[in-house]
Amino acid sequence: MATVKSPLPETAQKITGEALQGALVDLIDLSLVAKQAHWNITGRLFKQVHEHLDEVVDLAREYTDTVAERAVAIGTNPDGRSRTVADRTTLPQPDAGYIADDKVVALVTDTLAQIIGRFRERIAATDETDQVTQDLFIEITAALEKQHWMFSVQN
Amino acid sequence: MATVKSPLPETAQKITGEALQGALVDLIDLSLVAKQAHWNITGRLFKQVHEHLDEVVDLAREYTDTVAERAVAIGTNPDGRSRTVADRTTLPQPDAGYIADDKVVALVTDTLAQIIGRFRERIAATDETDQVTQDLFIEITAALEKQHWMFSVQN
Amino acid sequence: MATVKSPLPETAQKITGEALQGALVDLIDLSLVAKQAHWNITGRLFKQVHEHLDEVVDLAREYTDTVAERAVAIGTNPDGRSRTVADRTTLPQPDAGYIADDKVVALVTDTLAQIIGRFRERIAATDETDQVTQDLFIEITAALEKQHWMFSVQN
Amino acid sequence: MATVKSPLPETAQKITGEALQGALVDLIDLSLVAKQAHWNITGRLFKQVHEHLDEVVDLAREYTDTVAERAVAIGTNPDGRSRTVADRTTLPQPDAGYIADDKVVALVTDTLAQIIGRFRERIAATDETDQVTQDLFIEITAALEKQHWMFSVQN
Amino acid sequence: MATVKSPLPETAQKITGEALQGALVDLIDLSLVAKQAHWNITGRLFKQVHEHLDEVVDLAREYTDTVAERAVAIGTNPDGRSRTVADRTTLPQPDAGYIADDKVVALVTDTLAQIIGRFRERIAATDETDQVTQDLFIEITAALEKQHWMFSVQN
Amino acid sequence: MATVKSPLPETAQKITGEALQGALVDLIDLSLVAKQAHWNITGRLFKQVHEHLDEVVDLAREYTDTVAERAVAIGTNPDGRSRTVADRTTLPQPDAGYIADDKVVALVTDTLAQIIGRFRERIAATDETDQVTQDLFIEITAALEKQHWMFSVQN
Amino acid sequence: MATVKSPLPETAQKITGEALQGALVDLIDLSLVAKQAHWNITGRLFKQVHEHLDEVVDLAREYTDTVAERAVAIGTNPDGRSRTVADRTTLPQPDAGYIADDKVVALVTDTLAQIIGRFRERIAATDETDQVTQDLFIEITAALEKQHWMFSVQN
Amino acid sequence: MATVKSPLPETAQKITGEALQGALVDLIDLSLVAKQAHWNITGRLFKQVHEHLDEVVDLAREYTDTVAERAVAIGTNPDGRSRTVADRTTLPQPDAGYIADDKVVALVTDTLAQIIGRFRERIAATDETDQVTQDLFIEITAALEKQHWMFSVQN
Amino acid sequence: MATVKSPLPETAQKITGEALQGALVDLIDLSLVAKQAHWNITGRLFKQVHEHLDEVVDLAREYTDTVAERAVAIGTNPDGRSRTVADRTTLPQPDAGYIADDKVVALVTDTLAQIIGRFRERIAATDETDQVTQDLFIEITAALEKQHWMFSVQN
Amino acid sequence: MATVKSPLPETAQKITGEALQGALVDLIDLSLVAKQAHWNITGRLFKQVHEHLDEVVDLAREYTDTVAERAVAIGTNPDGRSRTVADRTTLPQPDAGYIADDKVVALVTDTLAQIIGRFRERIAATDETDQVTQDLFIEITAALEKQHWMFSVQN
Amino acid sequence: MATVKSPLPETAQKITGEALQGALVDLIDLSLVAKQAHWNITGRLFKQVHEHLDEVVDLAREYTDTVAERAVAIGTNPDGRSRTVADRTTLPQPDAGYIADDKVVALVTDTLAQIIGRFRERIAATDETDQVTQDLFIEITAALEKQHWMFSVQN
Amino acid sequence: MATVKSPLPETAQKITGEALQGALVDLIDLSLVAKQAHWNITGRLFKQVHEHLDEVVDLAREYTDTVAERAVAIGTNPDGRSRTVADRTTLPQPDAGYIADDKVVALVTDTLAQIIGRFRERIAATDETDQVTQDLFIEITAALEKQHWMFSVQN
Repeated sequence: MATVKSPLPETAQKITGEALQGALVDLIDLSLVAKQAHWNITGRLFKQVHEHLDEVVDLAREYTDTVAERAVAIGTNPDGRSRTVADRTTLPQPDAGYIADDKVVALVTDTLAQIIGRFRERIAATDETDQVTQDLFIEITAALEKQHWMFSVQN
Repeated sequence: MATVKSPLPETAQKITGEALQGALVDLIDLSLVAKQAHWNITGRLFKQVHEHLDEVVDLAREYTDTVAERAVAIGTNPDGRSRTVADRTTLPQPDAGYIADDKVVALVTDTLAQIIGRFRERIAATDETDQVTQDLFIEITAALEKQHWMFSVQN
Repeated sequence: MATVKSPLPETAQKITGEALQGALVDLIDLSLVAKQAHWNITGRLFKQVHEHLDEVVDLAREYTDTVAERAVAIGTNPDGRSRTVADRTTLPQPDAGYIADDKVVALVTDTLAQIIGRFRERIAATDETDQVTQDLFIEITAALEKQHWMFSVQN
Repeated sequence: MATVKSPLPETAQKITGEALQGALVDLIDLSLVAKQAHWNITGRLFKQVHEHLDEVVDLAREYTDTVAERAVAIGTNPDGRSRTVADRTTLPQPDAGYIADDKVVALVTDTLAQIIGRFRERIAATDETDQVTQDLFIEITAALEKQHWMFSVQN
Repeated sequence: MATVKSPLPETAQKITGEALQGALVDLIDLSLVAKQAHWNITGRLFKQVHEHLDEVVDLAREYTDTVAERAVAIGTNPDGRSRTVADRTTLPQPDAGYIADDKVVALVTDTLAQIIGRFRERIAATDETDQVTQDLFIEITAALEKQHWMFSVQN
Repeated sequence: MATVKSPLPETAQKITGEALQGALVDLIDLSLVAKQAHWNITGRLFKQVHEHLDEVVDLAREYTDTVAERAVAIGTNPDGRSRTVADRTTLPQPDAGYIADDKVVALVTDTLAQIIGRFRERIAATDETDQVTQDLFIEITAALEKQHWMFSVQN
Repeated sequence: MATVKSPLPETAQKITGEALQGALVDLIDLSLVAKQAHWNITGRLFKQVHEHLDEVVDLAREYTDTVAERAVAIGTNPDGRSRTVADRTTLPQPDAGYIADDKVVALVTDTLAQIIGRFRERIAATDETDQVTQDLFIEITAALEKQHWMFSVQN
Repeated sequence: MATVKSPLPETAQKITGEALQGALVDLIDLSLVAKQAHWNITGRLFKQVHEHLDEVVDLAREYTDTVAERAVAIGTNPDGRSRTVADRTTLPQPDAGYIADDKVVALVTDTLAQIIGRFRERIAATDETDQVTQDLFIEITAALEKQHWMFSVQN
Repeated sequence: MATVKSPLPETAQKITGEALQGALVDLIDLSLVAKQAHWNITGRLFKQVHEHLDEVVDLAREYTDTVAERAVAIGTNPDGRSRTVADRTTLPQPDAGYIADDKVVALVTDTLAQIIGRFRERIAATDETDQVTQDLFIEITAALEKQHWMFSVQN
Repeated sequence: MATVKSPLPETAQKITGEALQGALVDLIDLSLVAKQAHWNITGRLFKQVHEHLDEVVDLAREYTDTVAERAVAIGTNPDGRSRTVADRTTLPQPDAGYIADDKVVALVTDTLAQIIGRFRERIAATDETDQVTQDLFIEITAALEKQHWMFSVQN
Repeated sequence: MATVKSPLPETAQKITGEALQGALVDLIDLSLVAKQAHWNITGRLFKQVHEHLDEVVDLAREYTDTVAERAVAIGTNPDGRSRTVADRTTLPQPDAGYIADDKVVALVTDTLAQIIGRFRERIAATDETDQVTQDLFIEITAALEKQHWMFSVQN
Repeated sequence: MATVKSPLPETAQKITGEALQGALVDLIDLSLVAKQAHWNITGRLFKQVHEHLDEVVDLAREYTDTVAERAVAIGTNPDGRSRTVADRTTLPQPDAGYIADDKVVALVTDTLAQIIGRFRERIAATDETDQVTQDLFIEITAALEKQHWMFSVQN
């Protein structure tokens, strides 16, 4: 079976691959949490936050694909199956049912802050192992911190 | 808290809402399974199937949104959280790691056939409860059966 | 004078035509009421609701045209003149002058609920007379119920 | 309740506001009359005139919005409700039912000529009260007179 | 050889497949007849009708593809070969050579009326066998009846 | 009845017109054969060939129109009715039912080679009669030979 | 002063340059005559012919530019000044004032026929002198003969 | 014969119509002069000025159409025939043959200055006769003076 | 050095030029103030106002360019350097740091009202000196008053 | 009042924030200087340099926004008010009035060189404090150095 | 191995194939030379010529592809490898390092003149062997001669 | 002669410049090799690989331009002439004539792996000399490694 010969040495591949897999789980679950809020939000600011959440979904989906394809490009198989995501995610989960708009804003602010913390660790972890992957983590962190600012000031 | 007053009587809402929730789980997991294969596929037909899978992902994501918003429109809260999807999905799951192109084609063909079977049940279930939701199920079934044909003939 | 030979038998045409004419009055007046609110709304949520109302106007205008052209396609002349609309409309009318944003949301929610009720009657009425027209009513109802949800949760 | 402080002195606002309200009624009813003809026209030139009428509808709708928003910008509430339009319009109304293509052309030519006459009065009326509104009336008159030419020569 | 396992039971597949094959022949020949008139039409209304006919061709081609792909999606092979179309079509055929514009309008009006009659039979035939295919027939009938209206009023 | 006065002398018109009519039959039947294969193809290369065939259909349809309009521009009425195509076509016809992907490639390669042979004869035939039509045949031949290359190398 | 060294020998350049200059005058005046009719046409077919004339103007302007730039590319200066056009044009000129739609159609048909005659002479004249310019004349003739057909059948 | 009933009184129509006819001649000849320079310009700044001239041509052609259609909208027939333009134009004419780039810039600067002078007279002339036409002259003058600046500073 | 010869007499040029320079300072500083608020705004309506402010920035930037280019077109050099803007602006300035959303709305409403006051003076000042520039001021005032309305009703 | 909790430790935030504020002043004033030259430039190369300057303005405006939003994303309020820009800028300022094209090229070359020097210092300053901001500075430096090359070679 | 059966007889194929291979080398090297100048040009006309060169690159790349695909369509393998291009090209080569803008213009003018000479020989060579390829050479020659004119007049 | 003053110190410029020149040769020859395969490929996967190769060509051409312009931006002249590319390239070269699809995939996989190796060296080499150029190498490596994955899994 044809596979990819990694451009990285073995240890570097392992560390980088784990960082990418962690990022993958964060981003897939971010897209699912943001969609859950997108559908169930209620309150006077519904329309504004409902649409803002889809920007987060778009961002999460775009980088999910980039992160997973970067993993396979270094010869590591990404795992984005529902069971994997559900078991490994550490994102705070919204309750079922309607969610008030201010609760949504607080939840997303908090969720983004947590993910950003982990992405900054991934930037540090890949500094010596793969600058190409590190550059991708830097780009994603910039995008996440921009969203974090925009949700933070709405609290 | 502001909520939606259902345009349907209670029993009709309950049956329709359950059908929509089942459809939601099917479609979210279809998008995750298709992406998993999109990233990990290997074989001489890689490019053809890799791109074809993204058509399935697009279809699944578009109808995920329509189905979830239809649920809340009839006053039922959709649940698309990762834990819910992982626990309730009945889709066959690919193994981790590379997947050969012919295995991908067989897996997607089989998965689509199973989902189609459940959608045809949902069409029947909503015949008396809500023709608006039924019409959406009919539209989705048409799209799934078109994909089913295209994967079937590649086996 | 050239006219259209109806594809429907006479009774079916009559029932279907009346349902279409009722829908036409509802949709034209919905576009006028939504525009009236679009211009005269005031309050901190002005921009969000002002723009949301134009989505309702677009929807109403698009289906106004489809409904009227469906009427003539079955050989019944649609009547969308201002006098007809003013005399036959049963939509709640906003007062002249500024309207507070929360009043607008409540008014539109209520208006949509009433129109949806009548469209569901029209779906029932055309079940035996013309499935083609019924399918159009189902499509419009789906769109109206989506808007109804989005306004309901802002109250 | 937040309202608009007019940039115009009181008398100027009153005269300008009345001119805008008159223009609003003319334009809304023009869009309704043109649509009525668009749907019910019959004759060998059906396609040509049917499509031409939609250019008139587009023009009427675009300026309806501009005129109403200009009214509120000078602190005057526009009134575009169906009852107001039906009661105050002076446009010739088509009969119900099919209308022959040459009758449509004659009706639209005549209707435009009447509206143009009133718009030229509004240009004169606002010469001293508000050059900004006057400039809008000049622009609309140019557009109406262009349509008037195109319908005139088809009679 | 890989083939499609039908989502329908055998009898339902047979009835639905025959309805789709009949629709296919109607639509292919409609596109050929409309093109024949598009090229050979003569008369003062040449440009209007010439362009209108291409709307019919576009419609016929789009639904030809949808109908044929629906057939194979239910496991029935569509047959759109020239010999099949020529032998099975029941559409009135224009004479060779120039055709006067009023003759074209009459021919297309008549042709559409005949096709619509058969499509309404196909809607009935598939009511019990396959609601997904029936929904497609309903959509096509709506489009055909809209064109039928527009040609009818030009006679 | 208004007709076209040919820009060509009578003999030249006759020869050129016959060449154009032959081209018309070839191109219409090419579009029908390619669509037949597009729908009924099966095999592992389904997606690649299925989409490639639609490029052939687009090419055939575009030049069908150009060829037919060129015919009437020189005062000769084109005949593209289904009976004419079925009776005069010399293209190899696919059997009914599924067709394996390699059979499709072989069939299209062979079909294009035959059509190209006839187009090169038409280029020769119009060298003295009408350089304008000849230039069109040259353009079509270039497009057909490009497709012929792309199918040939897949055998 | 920098000038263009002709890729053609002197006699060939002279003959080709004269053919291009003649074509330039024909095309500029065709655009002016078509615009004159576009503005002053009257009659029931106004809209159809008014818009058709702008297709002729677009065609004439596009080829005016190509022809003039071809002239300078072979080292011959094109002359498209108003005095030159007025003095050398042989196109039939419309009278001042309104022109009835059927007169417009007859005039344009006749004008195109005359221009086509001269373009066919230019194709012959450049056969030995410059195949590149000849190919351009062939392309323009094809476009003019297509318009000639479409105006001819409206008479 | 159907004609346009002028929205202006007779004297106003006469003065306004003459101003429009003068503008028409200026603009048509501006487009011809600018094209003549566009083709025959030579010098190191060829590309910059060659492309700049086409902006002038686009501007001239767009306003030519607006001015002529404004004329017929007030019931006056515009005359844009080549003979009329050649006889009435007062624009400085370039010599035949190549024109150096600095000569082109000087010529266009001078030509625009002359046209602007006449347009400012037309603004004054229509101040009492037709504010709608005056507004058009103001718009054209703004565009011409912008071009005049851009050519002036290149001298 | 090449400069622009003004189309206006000296006094008219001076008055018009000063009005344009004043407008330039107003518009540049409006764009800077709106951007300052766009970045530093905080509060629950952040997203709605943040995006609305960019509409103001776009408007201010577009008219900044038009006003400056109009100045040089009448032979007066515009001055938009930072020192000039800072010294001559009379716009209320936001404090450094975060600004609450309601404060932003109040600030922009007030700022627009002041600018509108000065633009109405500029319309008056140019009535006798340059109708072309006046028309531009009228257009800008219309746009500013529309924004003023939309911010006013949010207070 | 809701504010942003910085993802950076305090010292890192301070150093990074100061670098961003310095960049903000450079970029805003670059856009103002480039516009000043865009409007007042004179000379034979006017058009080429006039348009090139708008590429610099676009670049400066785009990165102004990115830099300011990056500042607030790390919890530091950007200050882009006119007074701040005028007081803190160190960019060479053009004199008022016309500027010759070669002077413009020299000024922009010099200005870009100075800004690039400071951006390279900012890249160094943020190497330890925030790689996300550093990456943005690297991207902006690349864009500025590309422009610097293009202006340098024109001197 | 699947290959292309040539539509041409052997001698014709050989002559045509050699002409195409020669054209291929000319066009690839033209794109490389034009890019070399695009990057290294210096002088006051940098921007104008830098951008003009990319039009030449686009033209060369587009026809490179067409020529190579035409070669394989007639059964001859094109050879566009760097070694082949370097060894067979006869284009004048620019020196390494900066090139003054006037030198670039002279070089490109000369280079185009040489290539045009060879293309005119290829038109002659294919007159008897393949009119389809000849028509392509004619089209490319027209494009090259247009560029030749535009560079010539800048010397 | 105007040249670029490097933003880098001399040694840093030298090292960075050499890395960029090496990258330039790799990328130009990659585009030529990929095109050679694009034209001469044969085999059942022709269409899939033929189109995939053009993605590689687009990528190579886009980065060729970026790399060369980065070189001149740091004051080093790039050399992309055919002779330079042929002499310095170390890429494996395909044989002349047809190439089987699996050979193409193997060749491109191997070629990309070699280029990636050199790009990773260039990332290391510029770590101390120029982070701006290094960031560009990182971006290109990411793109090349993505293509490397996609070709690897097809072997």
